[in-house]
Amino acid sequence: MSCVRCGRSTVKFTAPPAVVGFGSAVGRREGDGPLGSGFDAVFTDATLGRPSWEAAETALQTEAFSRALARAGLNAGDLDRIFAGDLLNQCVASSLAHRGSAVPYLGLYGACSTMAEALGLAALCVDSGGVRAAAAVTSSHFCSAERQYRMPLEYGGQRPPTAQWTATASGCAILAAAGSGPRATHFTAGRIVDAGIADANNMGAAMAPAACATLAALFAESGLSPTDPDRIFTGDLGSFGLSLLRELLAREGLNLSDRLFDCGEMLYAPESDAHCGGSGAGCSAGVLCGHILPRLLSGEWRRVVFAGTGALHSPTTLNQGESIPGICHAVVLCADKEAFL
Amino acid sequence: MSCVRCGRSTVKFTAPPAVVGFGSAVGRREGDGPLGSGFDAVFTDATLGRPSWEAAETALQTEAFSRALARAGLNAGDLDRIFAGDLLNQCVASSLAHRGSAVPYLGLYGACSTMAEALGLAALCVDSGGVRAAAAVTSSHFCSAERQYRMPLEYGGQRPPTAQWTATASGCAILAAAGSGPRATHFTAGRIVDAGIADANNMGAAMAPAACATLAALFAESGLSPTDPDRIFTGDLGSFGLSLLRELLAREGLNLSDRLFDCGEMLYAPESDAHCGGSGAGCSAGVLCGHILPRLLSGEWRRVVFAGTGALHSPTTLNQGESIPGICHAVVLCADKEAFL
Repeated sequence: MSCVRCGRSTVKFTAPPAVVGFGSAVGRREGDGPLGSGFDAVFTDATLGRPSWEAAETALQTEAFSRALARAGLNAGDLDRIFAGDLLNQCVASSLAHRGSAVPYLGLYGACSTMAEALGLAALCVDSGGVRAAAAVTSSHFCSAERQYRMPLEYGGQRPPTAQWTATASGCAILAAAGSGPRATHFTAGRIVDAGIADANNMGAAMAPAACATLAALFAESGLSPTDPDRIFTGDLGSFGLSLLRELLAREGLNLSDRLFDCGEMLYAPESDAHCGGSGAGCSAGVLCGHILPRLLSGEWRRVVFAGTGALHSPTTLNQGESIPGICHAVVLCADKEAFL
Repeated sequence: MSCVRCGRSTVKFTAPPAVVGFGSAVGRREGDGPLGSGFDAVFTDATLGRPSWEAAETALQTEAFSRALARAGLNAGDLDRIFAGDLLNQCVASSLAHRGSAVPYLGLYGACSTMAEALGLAALCVDSGGVRAAAAVTSSHFCSAERQYRMPLEYGGQRPPTAQWTATASGCAILAAAGSGPRATHFTAGRIVDAGIADANNMGAAMAPAACATLAALFAESGLSPTDPDRIFTGDLGSFGLSLLRELLAREGLNLSDRLFDCGEMLYAPESDAHCGGSGAGCSAGVLCGHILPRLLSGEWRRVVFAGTGALHSPTTLNQGESIPGICHAVVLCADKEAFL
């Protein structure tokens, strides 16, 4: 037994794996935002010189992966697993990005929560002793996502105020049994919560109830108090979803307000016309690897909860009248062993 | 540490989890096939009384899940995790099937290899001690898959001889730390292998090289000899892919011929016009839960390798000229502790 079962949803690692490397790559709009200086690579050409948006997203993920390996001082040959996913149908940005790496590959789909899912499963595999080092990597691209989920860009569709902007971004974190870096100590796997929202331009509302359920489970099961983490990041509810989450948490008696932030809400400047903020599987991944992990590494923060949120929506089932189920997975990250709880 | 790292791809469980329950549900064509008597539920109406093919697939997965719980004598409330996936865009058959279950949910995408991926990750989580019981469940439906990947049925498109028939099927296996049943002892995670095949009607050729790589890794790393398992099931190369795999294995010096079978090749009678056989995320899952696990439970077979194969193809990237990467994940199942190696 390598994990402790804290409760139905939460495991605590007995040998918390270290994040030995991380990398991020984003588009121009993300690079121009408030977090822009933290990203390893900013591409001003949305195509990344590739012939399609899908190929551009693949290149973005490859870049984040390479940056993470370089920061870790590792080669792909040192990795035992890649956990990866994205928003494209059949998760092709990920499978094409890693088809040449020869690393055992496990594909995930958790919509915008995929990075938290990947991070948690990679940590669990490393903690088990069966895997020495594993990468968690996800991506999204505004242009490939809009075409697939809503409207082709050429239609020039109007965006309502609750809409979020799918981030052109990718983040990769490498977890290992040996080495130094921030450590993953707990993984809370979320349940699907369907609040009945059926508007693909209001994903914050679809995801907030799941975020509330997962954060409530994390604090109830792990023994962590809401004041133990320096920061709690949901990713990516956007500003509207974040305000809903605050209301829902208050009903549960959880007051996280001064330490609760949202990756999507932070990614773009308010005046940038991104409406409620960023979204996409690459949004929280990029913010994790460009903003959060560097501050854990520097010791600015000692403990962070990274709670990825996903809207499990499909254009097909939406057209058939189905609602959008939400999900949220959370990983607790500590700056060092002294911060473990 | 709960797992032993046998090599880069393979982990060996130290407390091999038991398959305490399993269930299967299929359509009429699968029920009429050579394995028909093994399935728990056969639906003669392809819609399952639902208003869409997607909703029908969701109902199929719910049925397999319910049957597995019933055989295990468990309720959904006894499960700590569901690992699930399917072939639909955004994996909606799975997320809609489990949105009401309140079980922590981890979505996977491995195309037709998803059941092996789910089984391996569920076993790893249970073996870690962090999870008491976890379900692995996948599905596919001929009508929802054809529309999405190839042609709407109404077009009446011709199928070439190498085509496979996406199975209308679902299978669910429940792994637990406590209880009796066949046990998962090893999990080999495969790497992506791209042989350059770009024909969505020849997936067997796209997947066979990945199956060869994973089986070679399993035998090299685990210490199992090719004669240790009574049966080795790939799922689902079909008859053409299976013949390619035999050739590739021979080049590696691996002769598995008298014990190597393929779930897709077995699912339909040769005269049934399914061409190369079955495919789909539900194909190997259905054969696992309707044919393989019952024979491990009865003791007819003592050791089985279940090697799920997936073609990571996307209509979008195929249209853009990309090839189809293949992947294969393998789990070793033993009838009882005396069969452990």
